[in-house]
Amino acid sequence: MSSTGITAPAGFTAAATTAGIKPSGNPDMALVVNTGPEYHAAAVFTRNRVVASPVKVSREAVADGRIRAVLFNAGNANACNGAQGDRDAAAAVEQVAQLLDVAPADVGVCSTGLIGEPMPMDKVHAGVETLAGDLGDHGEDAAVAIMTTDLVKKETVVNAEGWTLGGMGKGVGMMSPSLATMLVCLTTDASATPEMLDEALRAASKVTFDTLDIDGSTSTNDTVFLLASGASGVTPTQAELNAAVLQASEDIARQMQADAEGVTKRVTVTVEGTSTDEQAVNAARTLARDNLFKCAMFGSDPNWGRVLAAVGMADADMDPDHISVYFNRHAVCENTTGTPDAREVDLSGADIDVLVNLGVDGPGRATVRTTDLSHDYVHINSAYSS
Amino acid sequence: MSSTGITAPAGFTAAATTAGIKPSGNPDMALVVNTGPEYHAAAVFTRNRVVASPVKVSREAVADGRIRAVLFNAGNANACNGAQGDRDAAAAVEQVAQLLDVAPADVGVCSTGLIGEPMPMDKVHAGVETLAGDLGDHGEDAAVAIMTTDLVKKETVVNAEGWTLGGMGKGVGMMSPSLATMLVCLTTDASATPEMLDEALRAASKVTFDTLDIDGSTSTNDTVFLLASGASGVTPTQAELNAAVLQASEDIARQMQADAEGVTKRVTVTVEGTSTDEQAVNAARTLARDNLFKCAMFGSDPNWGRVLAAVGMADADMDPDHISVYFNRHAVCENTTGTPDAREVDLSGADIDVLVNLGVDGPGRATVRTTDLSHDYVHINSAYSS
Repeated sequence: MSSTGITAPAGFTAAATTAGIKPSGNPDMALVVNTGPEYHAAAVFTRNRVVASPVKVSREAVADGRIRAVLFNAGNANACNGAQGDRDAAAAVEQVAQLLDVAPADVGVCSTGLIGEPMPMDKVHAGVETLAGDLGDHGEDAAVAIMTTDLVKKETVVNAEGWTLGGMGKGVGMMSPSLATMLVCLTTDASATPEMLDEALRAASKVTFDTLDIDGSTSTNDTVFLLASGASGVTPTQAELNAAVLQASEDIARQMQADAEGVTKRVTVTVEGTSTDEQAVNAARTLARDNLFKCAMFGSDPNWGRVLAAVGMADADMDPDHISVYFNRHAVCENTTGTPDAREVDLSGADIDVLVNLGVDGPGRATVRTTDLSHDYVHINSAYSS
Repeated sequence: MSSTGITAPAGFTAAATTAGIKPSGNPDMALVVNTGPEYHAAAVFTRNRVVASPVKVSREAVADGRIRAVLFNAGNANACNGAQGDRDAAAAVEQVAQLLDVAPADVGVCSTGLIGEPMPMDKVHAGVETLAGDLGDHGEDAAVAIMTTDLVKKETVVNAEGWTLGGMGKGVGMMSPSLATMLVCLTTDASATPEMLDEALRAASKVTFDTLDIDGSTSTNDTVFLLASGASGVTPTQAELNAAVLQASEDIARQMQADAEGVTKRVTVTVEGTSTDEQAVNAARTLARDNLFKCAMFGSDPNWGRVLAAVGMADADMDPDHISVYFNRHAVCENTTGTPDAREVDLSGADIDVLVNLGVDGPGRATVRTTDLSHDYVHINSAYSS
């Protein structure tokens, strides 16, 4: 049997169950356990200052670079539930720790779903009980259990020289109702220090999950874990580890972009011709978040004027008289002036590539992935909790 | 006959005509002339770094605080037309100056319409010829001629002690196709120095036009002129002038918000409980631009979790555990936790009032006006230039 996702690397077991948290009756809880011999970990969390209770617990747990297990649930975000939410997250972690005979401080927890609904702790406790008794090669089941409005499960495996990196993710790039938390768990049997893991995860997130920008919204629960068991006995170089984590993160981010609800177009925005990569990200993000631009993409409309108007507001060095815009590698604007056949470029396909050169002689360059703004986006997001 | 809008104050004449720039065949050019005895002026322009040719010309013209006339056209923004656009804007101004026997440097110009289309200068020159020969008490006609996708003309008059302030505006708060430039012209027969005018206009814009934030987009052409003829012979105090300019600006901004295309809700977002007014504006703007929040408003859905997730990303001091949210003065979230009857608040009306307290003991407070994100917004903005 070939293992997939988080249980592909040696030293990891997983379980999934239906605890009844999702009204749909679909699987909604999962547990991932690092069976060692090492228990190193790193994590990145939402930059939102309003954070869910599970994020507070996980942030504290991973601070020492050591994690034995991570509990997941979908259907309830346990966010904005006050002190009761904190107590509930801690109680679930306590129960996992007791059943696995590990320290509570070595257990993380991730939740996704509605904000502001109390956790149904009777269901959670029964679910944890079941999960702890059913651990095995169930990476795929775990990937299914963490889905909310995702249409497909998201898994990845990277096979390196003598070691493996696996992963699962859920999230539809913030497009989905109720803030569409992005949760990702990466696992590896490589031997790596927490510092190596942290460096690899931050570098990869910066150019994958951090630049997947569907509508500028950022959830209270976003979490990416990277766990390392050392079970392969192989210690990769930092560069090798970075490459594998980047590949896995790119794969999962692409699956999220493709699964964004209400999407008819996948839009890749690249900005160059500015002073720094950070400025390029600013400009690409400003464009990727501009509703007029996103509506034009939905309409397959090569309305380059909206691109100029959007990037003109960005915090990036530019020469306002020498901006160029390319749609699908076709020049539609040069020196801030439309090309004669600008309106004839074909944007009817599902993938649109936008390149903007801000006209400054600098090395700054960045890519942000986004989507169009469609009727379905509005429909889905206006008819959820009511 | 009672004069309206920009010709209500003494010392101003106006004209409007149909030059054929709009494909619809509706009136599309206007001229406003200050007949003195004073010719003082101030203006504020778009913060976009990609600016249309008319903005470049007007910015230079008003730099010395003196403006004799402003030419308006709708149907073509004369933006992103390169050096030809600059020459065209200058040529129109030259013609106005010659016909009125004033210096070109004392003439402003404002354009609104499609970006990246060359100006039809034959039509523009014929239009200017007609306008110069038809000056009179035609403020209302001018207000009609500058409309693009506006459904109604927008005028205002403020009667002060012995002096008057009038105004016209066009714009639908950036909601409309093709960047929906906001153009405003305010006129007064008060005697006021350019410095007084500048202070009054900047103070008023900051809390009216600058906080009318429909979708975060900012046009290449946005311009607000304030012209003073001194014809009343009355010199108001700075405070009196400020008050009148604020009242007129508020009136026009409200008309723009109400006319925003695709809008079903007018949403007023107020943020308090933070350190400074600037931080409060940041937070209010972050919320006003959040698509998930705007979709919830469209659906009359009291989904306060989206408010917290949005303001949590704002550049403002806050206590993440002590944020309160009120919809229509009904508490839906206290101490970052939902109130028991939060989901029962009625948001079915056309006006929704949102108050967010960020939980910090500071004087910061600001209000931003926005709208919902509707099916029609997407429809209108995806089916324009194609």
